[in-house]
Amino acid sequence: MEAYTIFKDLAIIIIAAKFFGIVARKCKAPQVVGEIIAGLIIGPCIFGWVVQTDFLTEMAEIGVILLMFSAGLETDLKDLMKTGPIALLIACCGVFVPLISGAVLYMAFYGVSPWGSESFYKAVFIGTILTATSVSITVECLKEMGKLKSQVGTTILSAAIIDDVIGIVVLTFVVGFKNPDANQMKVVINTLLFFVFAIVIGFIMYHIFRAFDERYTHRRRVPIAGFAFCLAMAYVAEKYFGIADITGAYVAGIILCSVKDADYIEEKMDINSYMMFGPIFFVGIGLKTNIDHINAEILMFTAAFVVVGLISKVIGCGLMAKICRFQNNDALKIGVGMMTRGEVALIVAQKGLSVGLVSSEFFTSVIMLIIVSSILTPVLLKILYAKSDKQEPLQPEVQSA
Amino acid sequence: MEAYTIFKDLAIIIIAAKFFGIVARKCKAPQVVGEIIAGLIIGPCIFGWVVQTDFLTEMAEIGVILLMFSAGLETDLKDLMKTGPIALLIACCGVFVPLISGAVLYMAFYGVSPWGSESFYKAVFIGTILTATSVSITVECLKEMGKLKSQVGTTILSAAIIDDVIGIVVLTFVVGFKNPDANQMKVVINTLLFFVFAIVIGFIMYHIFRAFDERYTHRRRVPIAGFAFCLAMAYVAEKYFGIADITGAYVAGIILCSVKDADYIEEKMDINSYMMFGPIFFVGIGLKTNIDHINAEILMFTAAFVVVGLISKVIGCGLMAKICRFQNNDALKIGVGMMTRGEVALIVAQKGLSVGLVSSEFFTSVIMLIIVSSILTPVLLKILYAKSDKQEPLQPEVQSA
Repeated sequence: MEAYTIFKDLAIIIIAAKFFGIVARKCKAPQVVGEIIAGLIIGPCIFGWVVQTDFLTEMAEIGVILLMFSAGLETDLKDLMKTGPIALLIACCGVFVPLISGAVLYMAFYGVSPWGSESFYKAVFIGTILTATSVSITVECLKEMGKLKSQVGTTILSAAIIDDVIGIVVLTFVVGFKNPDANQMKVVINTLLFFVFAIVIGFIMYHIFRAFDERYTHRRRVPIAGFAFCLAMAYVAEKYFGIADITGAYVAGIILCSVKDADYIEEKMDINSYMMFGPIFFVGIGLKTNIDHINAEILMFTAAFVVVGLISKVIGCGLMAKICRFQNNDALKIGVGMMTRGEVALIVAQKGLSVGLVSSEFFTSVIMLIIVSSILTPVLLKILYAKSDKQEPLQPEVQSA
Repeated sequence: MEAYTIFKDLAIIIIAAKFFGIVARKCKAPQVVGEIIAGLIIGPCIFGWVVQTDFLTEMAEIGVILLMFSAGLETDLKDLMKTGPIALLIACCGVFVPLISGAVLYMAFYGVSPWGSESFYKAVFIGTILTATSVSITVECLKEMGKLKSQVGTTILSAAIIDDVIGIVVLTFVVGFKNPDANQMKVVINTLLFFVFAIVIGFIMYHIFRAFDERYTHRRRVPIAGFAFCLAMAYVAEKYFGIADITGAYVAGIILCSVKDADYIEEKMDINSYMMFGPIFFVGIGLKTNIDHINAEILMFTAAFVVVGLISKVIGCGLMAKICRFQNNDALKIGVGMMTRGEVALIVAQKGLSVGLVSSEFFTSVIMLIIVSSILTPVLLKILYAKSDKQEPLQPEVQSA
C-alpha cells in the first residue's frame, strides 16, 4: 500500500464522521451514533470507500486509550470512593445475569447439554462474551451531555471498570476449564497485584506530577508526560498483568485526576481525540461490519443474542441499582449505560475462537450486538436524561461541535 | 504484533523525544536535534528498544504532512509573492549545483564514464538524490526561533517547494532516459496541471472557508475541515499529479493561510503535532539508521557524499542568494537552511533502486546525509541567527516547551 492512501482514508473518515455527527446531532441523537453510521456508509457495507487496515485498527486502539484516559482524568476521586461499593454490586450483577442468560440462549438454540460437557462450555462461553461492558460509547455520550461527573456517570464508569476485571477473570476461568495449562489462581493473583501496583505507582506518579505542575503549570511537557504515562500504564497492564489495556489507561487517568493541571492535560488529549483518533475509532466499528455471509439461522441467533445481550445487562445492572436505592429513572440509566459492548467483546470472542470454544460465524452476532448497543445506548440515554432533566432542570453543559 | 506494543513504543518515543529535546535546548541546540539523537539512542544503533515498524512509518508520514500544512498556514502570501522570483532562481541553482557535484563525485570514485552510458546515468542519479531539499527540519527550527515568517524564512520555504518540483521533474527525466516507457513531457504537463488545479481549488476552498469561518469562528469543525482538506490535497497531489504529498499539504496550508481562523487551525494542528506526530517523525529518522553493514569503501564514499551534499547546496543556494542581493549572513542562512535532506531523498533513492540505477548500499550514505544535515543545519542556523541578532536585536519569539 502506498503511504498516501492513508491520507485518502483519513480524509474520508474525518469528513464523514464530522458530517454524520452533525446530522445525528440535528436529529437530537449523539454524535457517536452518526460516526458509527458514517462507518457503515463509507465501509464495505455500502460504498466500500474505506477498508479497515492494520493502520486504522492501530489508530483506533490509540483512540480508545485516549478516550479512557480522558474519562479517568474527568473522574472525581471522592465520588468514585463513594460509589465504589455500590458499583461493585452493580458490576457483579451485570456480569452474572448476562453470563447465565447467554448460556441459556445457546442451549435454547443448540440443545441443553450436561454440566462439564464440551457444548456446555460452549454455552458458557457465549455468556462470557456478553459479560464485558465497553463504556467508551457511554463515556463519549455522557461527556457530550455534560453528565460524566454525575453520580450516575461515575457509577457506570466504576461499575464498568470492575465488570471488565470480573469479565476477564471469568474468561480465564472458562478457558482454563477447557485448557488445563492456564492457572486460574494466577489470574486472580495477577489482577490483585495489578491494583496493588496501581496504588503504589499511583502514589509515586501523583507526587511527581504534583511537583511537576507546580513548576510547569500549563507547559507542554505536562500533558506530554501525562500521555506517556497513560501509554505506559496501558502497556504494563496488558503485558505484565493480563489486564485490558483500556483499564490501564483509565487507571492512569484516575491517578492524575487530582493533579492541578488535570484539566489542561485533558484539554490537550481531547483535541487529539476529536481531530483524528475518536472518529477513527467510532467509524472503525462501522467499517468492521460485513453483511455478506449472513443466512437465516445466523440471523435468528443474532437477533436473539442481541436482545438477550441488551436486556440481561439492563436487568442485571438496573435491578441492582434499584436495590441500591437509585431512583427508577437513574437505575434505568445505569442499566442502559452498561449495555454497550465494544472491542472487549470482540477480543473475548477472538480468544474463544483460538481455543475452539466458538466458531467464526458468531462474530457477526458479536458485531451486531456492538453496533445495535452502540446506537441504542446513546439514543436511550438521551431520552432518559431529557425525561429527568424536565423534572429537575439543570444547566445544560453542551460542548461546541 | 500485539496491539499494546504500540503503546510501549509510543511511550518510549514521546518520553525520549521530550527528554532529549529539553537537553538539546539546554545545550542551546534546537529541540529537533535532540529528537533525532533520541531516535539514534533508543533505536537499533544503540539500545534497540524501539524498532521502526510500518505503523510508526505511517504515523511519521502524517507527522510530515502536519508539519508542512502548519508551515503553509504560517505563510504570509504577500511575502511569498514578493520572494517568488528570487526563490525560483535560488531553487534552480540549488538543484543544478548538487546534481552536477553528485555526478562528478560518483565518477571520481568509480571512474569517468562516457555520455549516455549505463554508469553515466548512475552518476547522474547520485546527483539527483542530492537535489531535493527537505525543509521540515529547517521549518521546525525557524519556528522554534520565531523566524519562519522572516524574509529569509519565506525565501527558504518557497525555494524548497520549487526545488522539490524541479527535483521531481529531474528524477523523472533521469529515470525516463533509462526507461523509454516514462513520458517526460507528461511529467512537465502534470506538474503544470497541478498548479493550475491548486489555483482553481484554492480559489473555491478559500471562499468556502471564508464563509465557513464567518459562521463558525473558533468552532471545532473549522480545523477538522482544514485538516481533511490538507489530507485530501496531499493525496490528490501524489495520486493524480505525481507531485510529492508534502507539497500538496503545504499548498493546502497556503490556500488557507489568509482565512480568518488560520491561527486557530494551526494551533490545533500544532497540538497534534507536538504531542505525537512530530516526535514520531523526528525520532523516526534516528530509528531508521542501522550501522551494521558498513565497510571502509562505503564509509569513504559516505563521507565524501555527505560533504559534497552539504557544500553543494550551500554554494548553489548561498551564491545565488548573494547575487540576488541578500547580505552575506542572510545568504549563508539560506544556503544552510536549504542543505537539509529528508524523506524525499530516500524516496528518490528508493526509486533508483527499483529501476536499477543505484544499489542498496548507497542507502547508508543517504541516511547519513539526512542525519548529518538534520543535526548540522539547526546548529548552524542557530549560530548564524545569534550572530545577526547581536548586530540588530529583535524581540525573541520563543515557544514554551
